[in-house]
Order: sequence, then C-alpha cells, then structure tokens
Amino acid sequence: MLENSTRTELSSLGEFGLIKHLTQHIEIKNPSSIKGVGDDAAVINYSEGDKVTLVTTDMLVEGVHFDLTYVPLKHLGYKSVVVNLSDIYAMNGQPKQITVSFALSNRFSLESIEELYAGMLMACEKYGVDLVGGDTTSSLSGLVISITAIGEGDKNKVVYRNTAKESDLLCVSGDLGGAYMGLQILEREKAVFKENPKIQPDLEGKDYILERQLKPEARRDIIKLFEALEMKPTSMIDVSDGLASEILHLCDQSQVGCELYEEKIPIDPQTYDTARQFNLDPTMCALSGGEDYELLFTISTSDYDKVKNQLDFTVIGHVTNKTAGANLVTKSGGSHPLQAQGWDALRKK
Amino acid sequence: MLENSTRTELSSLGEFGLIKHLTQHIEIKNPSSIKGVGDDAAVINYSEGDKVTLVTTDMLVEGVHFDLTYVPLKHLGYKSVVVNLSDIYAMNGQPKQITVSFALSNRFSLESIEELYAGMLMACEKYGVDLVGGDTTSSLSGLVISITAIGEGDKNKVVYRNTAKESDLLCVSGDLGGAYMGLQILEREKAVFKENPKIQPDLEGKDYILERQLKPEARRDIIKLFEALEMKPTSMIDVSDGLASEILHLCDQSQVGCELYEEKIPIDPQTYDTARQFNLDPTMCALSGGEDYELLFTISTSDYDKVKNQLDFTVIGHVTNKTAGANLVTKSGGSHPLQAQGWDALRKK
Repeated sequence: MLENSTRTELSSLGEFGLIKHLTQHIEIKNPSSIKGVGDDAAVINYSEGDKVTLVTTDMLVEGVHFDLTYVPLKHLGYKSVVVNLSDIYAMNGQPKQITVSFALSNRFSLESIEELYAGMLMACEKYGVDLVGGDTTSSLSGLVISITAIGEGDKNKVVYRNTAKESDLLCVSGDLGGAYMGLQILEREKAVFKENPKIQPDLEGKDYILERQLKPEARRDIIKLFEALEMKPTSMIDVSDGLASEILHLCDQSQVGCELYEEKIPIDPQTYDTARQFNLDPTMCALSGGEDYELLFTISTSDYDKVKNQLDFTVIGHVTNKTAGANLVTKSGGSHPLQAQGWDALRKK
Repeated sequence: MLENSTRTELSSLGEFGLIKHLTQHIEIKNPSSIKGVGDDAAVINYSEGDKVTLVTTDMLVEGVHFDLTYVPLKHLGYKSVVVNLSDIYAMNGQPKQITVSFALSNRFSLESIEELYAGMLMACEKYGVDLVGGDTTSSLSGLVISITAIGEGDKNKVVYRNTAKESDLLCVSGDLGGAYMGLQILEREKAVFKENPKIQPDLEGKDYILERQLKPEARRDIIKLFEALEMKPTSMIDVSDGLASEILHLCDQSQVGCELYEEKIPIDPQTYDTARQFNLDPTMCALSGGEDYELLFTISTSDYDKVKNQLDFTVIGHVTNKTAGANLVTKSGGSHPLQAQGWDALRKK
C-alpha cells in the first residue's frame, strides 16, 4: 500500500519543508487552542485567569539523534528531557510536567532502561518538573524516545517567533557551536576506537564542549533574568538546529530581515580552538552546528540598557526590513545571505 | 555502555511491570499536577475555575502495533489519533488538542505521509480536535508514531481508575473481541497472499470486525450519554488491551475484587461466528483480544435505573471485596481467577 502514482522523496523537502507542507491547511477549531503548529510550543488556554498552557513535543531516534556507543544512557535521558524544556522556556514560560514514551528492543535490559529513566528524573528534579505519564513499547530495532513537555505561561508574557519588529536588536544567550564540536570529538574517538580498541579516548581539555554535547542545560536562568529585568523579548526561539536556521525561522515568521554580525557571535575559546584543530571555521560551527539550546531573541532598542551589562547576553545583530533579507556581515565587512546548512533530520540517512 | 553487571530481561516484567517499576518512586512536585502516571491520562490544573487539563500519550511502532502490508496509511493515521482520544474520554473528559510526532525512513514518500496525515486530520475533524504541534524526524527502519492528546475535564467530573467501590456494578459499552477477530482475518489473508499473490482476499461478510480493527472509533457518545443521564461512573478505563487486563487494572488500583459473568459479555454475532471459524473461544477473544476502545466502568447501584435500558451499556458483573479477588463466573457456573493474557507489547518480539 506504499505504492503511489507519483512519488516525491521526503529528502527533497527536508524536515521543515515536510512539516510546513503537512500543516499548511490546518484550521484551529477550539477557542482554547491559542497557537498551534509553528512555534517552539503550542499555546492552550483552559483557564479563566491570565495563565495559558504550553505544549511541546520531540522525538529522538537511535542512530539519527544519538549514538549509544559513546552516549551514556543516563546522559541521554537527561538531554532528552532538557531539549523539551528548552522549547517551553523559549516561549517565556515555565515547564511543569512531561510525559515520556519509549520504544525499545530486547537488546536493552531493565538496568539499562533504569539508567535512561534515572537521567530523565534527574532533569525533572533539577527543573522542578513532574513526570506525569507515558507509554512503553517494544521496537524491532533501536531505541526511540518521545517526550511531551507541558508548561505554564502568563497570557501577556508568552513570546512567539512571529513578532520581531524592524530595528529590534537580535540577541543570543551563552555561546554557540560548543555542542557541535563536542560531537566531533566523540565521533573522532569512536573512529579511533574502531581502528584500535586498546587506545584510550583522548578527551583531555575538552570538558566544556563534551558537556555541551552530552549534558546540555535549558536556559531557565535567562527566563528568570527577563523577569528580574522587567523585560519581555519581542520574539524568541531556542537554538536547537544552529543559529542560521533559527534566525531564518524568526525572520520568516515575523516577515522581517536582519543583519547578523559575524564578529559578535559568541564562541567559547575551547570551541574555537577545537574547530581550528579540526580545520573547521568556528563561525560555521556556530551557524550550523546546532544542539546548543541557547535562546535567540529580539528586543526593543528601548530595552538595550537592561541587557548591555548582562554577561550572558550578546547583541549579535539587528532586525531589518523583509526586503533586505537575512544577511551575515562577515569580519571582513562583506555581506552574504544567511543560509541554513544546519543539521537536517531528513537528510541524515 | 549497554553492559551491566546484572541484566534483567525486559520480557520478565512485561509492559505494565516495567512502567510500574520505573515510576514507583516518582513524587509529584507541582501543585498543578493533580494526577500523574497510572491512569488513562494525567490530570493537570492550571485554571482558577473548575476545569482541569488531561494529557495522555501513546506510541505506535511498525511491526509491533501495525503491519503496513494490510493497514492503509490513512486508516493508521485515523486509528492512531482515535486511540489517544479514547484515553481522554476514559477520564470523562473532552479531547481538544493533539500533538503528532513521527519517525520515518526514506522508504516513505511524501504522498504516503500525506495519506497518514490525512487520516489523522480526518479523526481531528470528526472529534473536534486541533492538531497543535509535533515533530518529524527520520528513522533507520520503520515508522514510529507518537501522539499526545490534551483535553479538558470538569474538576468534579473526572473519573479515575482507582475509585471503584464494593457492590458497584461493572459495565462496558458496545461489544468486545471484534477488533481482534478483524486482525485474525487480515493476518489470514496476508498468509494466503504470501502463498499465492493471485488469490483475491476473502473479506466478505467481515465488514464490521474489519472496521473494528482498521478504523475504530472512540466513545465520545458514551461521555455525552453520561452527561445527559446526569450520572458519573465511579471508575473508568478504556478497553485497549482486552477486557481481562482492564478489569484487573481497575481492581488493582481500586483495591477491590469483582465477579465478571461470562454470559453477560457483549459479543457481536460476526465476532462470535468468526471466532468459531478460527476454532477460537469467543469469550477468550473478548477477554484478551484488545483494541476494542470501548469504555469499561463501574457505577453505583443507585444509578442502575439510568443505564438498564441503554442499548449501548451492558452490566457484566459487580465489584466485590478485594479478598475475594477478580473472578470470571463461567456459563457453566464455575468461578476462575481472571487472568490477563492480553496483548503485551514487550512479549511481541
């Protein structure tokens, strides 16, 4: 029943193309569905007051999103929860509950699943989230994890992707490209190990980027900081697929352009040096690496004074008119259209 | 990293054993988490008023839960949504939103995924539910679908699994065992086709049970009927794994026993006749077949007058003291402890 007169390969659309294609004709029927597909999380309102419910979901597939030859199951459990919480924070909300489903083959023992689960519960503990449901089933091959996070937001404080305005400042939290370089180190050591299993992995001096890859954190602290600074970004998204891809999402949905300054992109020295060792351009790692789980947001210029002395914020550009497009202004002063060459799940075959 | 000093096979626990084992130490932290793991859906309260949020999730894996050689993708999409909505109805609530995630290999074309999605949206349309989010990724082998349904309930009308009381009546909606017999027909025709691809499938006179298997419906009408009859079941669960398994869940969680009368179990003539053709005991098909998505519930004896003339309700037994256990009273008058021999995802290898 898979035959069809026409056959369009999924790889020709890519993940975002596929989602857009499938969801383009969806019409919202329930008044409680404030915001559906198209942001970090859906927004639902069941309350009489000022609170709305935020819902987001992610699926992680063995061999596509993670490689158990070097990812400990506990770390995987932790990370799989954190990446979902990150989407709730990216709405300027607070995650409160998660549901966890997994499919696993008989290759896994109870002890190994306990490790995975322990990592999930560790993340729940750290972020004050309750695990309230889930499903467990068998799989014929690898491990598949699906997590849904549910959170709470103030109706007037939820921040969407489609509300950036011309002349807003483009900002990012933390630093970028680290998780990608951590992955490169792990992939290198895996290759070395395959050649000669007696050689010990060489991970010295790579603590920071390995942690960025194996045990990322969601930026709850940034949401608290917005609260403390009494400010609300004009738009926000989390950086899961690489800076370039996320900026293009913001610009596309907000119908604006932007100028991103290469020299402003925050990159940790360990990320920078490791990229150089691998003959990679550190800027490209930040633009296309992904999995940093930092927050990318725009703010009104009137809020600049509030953020300028915050060490965790970096102003990396500004929002322009849509006709100008989204551009990268390089260190040498050139300007190039920003391209998303990021991690694309559907091309990873 | 999968090695461990002890290794307990997952098959020794079964699906429910695994879930119980993993979730036994979970403590609820957020006041908004009214009910966590252990019912058809979690119950969340973000509202100031009388409404609570219900959340449930299910994962369906190709080769475990469905076989694409005879399940059309549109039907699969429809069914995958319906089984989640059924869990919300089983809380006496109204589903309002779903999120949909799927992992798929490049074996699938865009057209085939459109079919799947069209089936999902058809179910959304029929049940008045909004698709508000999801995730799409690649898989190395088959198709994995994970759906989360979110719904609304009245705080005082939500019905749990753990509140059945001694002397309550045990009731079920519709009839049982049909979906299982539909599956037997499809499996038989698949085997015939493998032997000789030229033979046309023999599905004549099996419309009802095939529809029960391929395109089940969730019992929204029963929830409306409770409302119209101004009654609230004392406990409720949906029949996804077979009547025996669900009764044992109710008894276990409510700390009660029960007597189930074999002669009262509602079985459609087509189900009955087909079971006989397959040399199967129709009662066993109802007890252990699963996938009927009917509602199993208990009511106070004082509500008996309200249900006795409802064609869609059957009183199949009554609740007893825990010490008496859960028993099947056979047509010949014997009494046997009820056993869940139902579909167990973790044994299906």
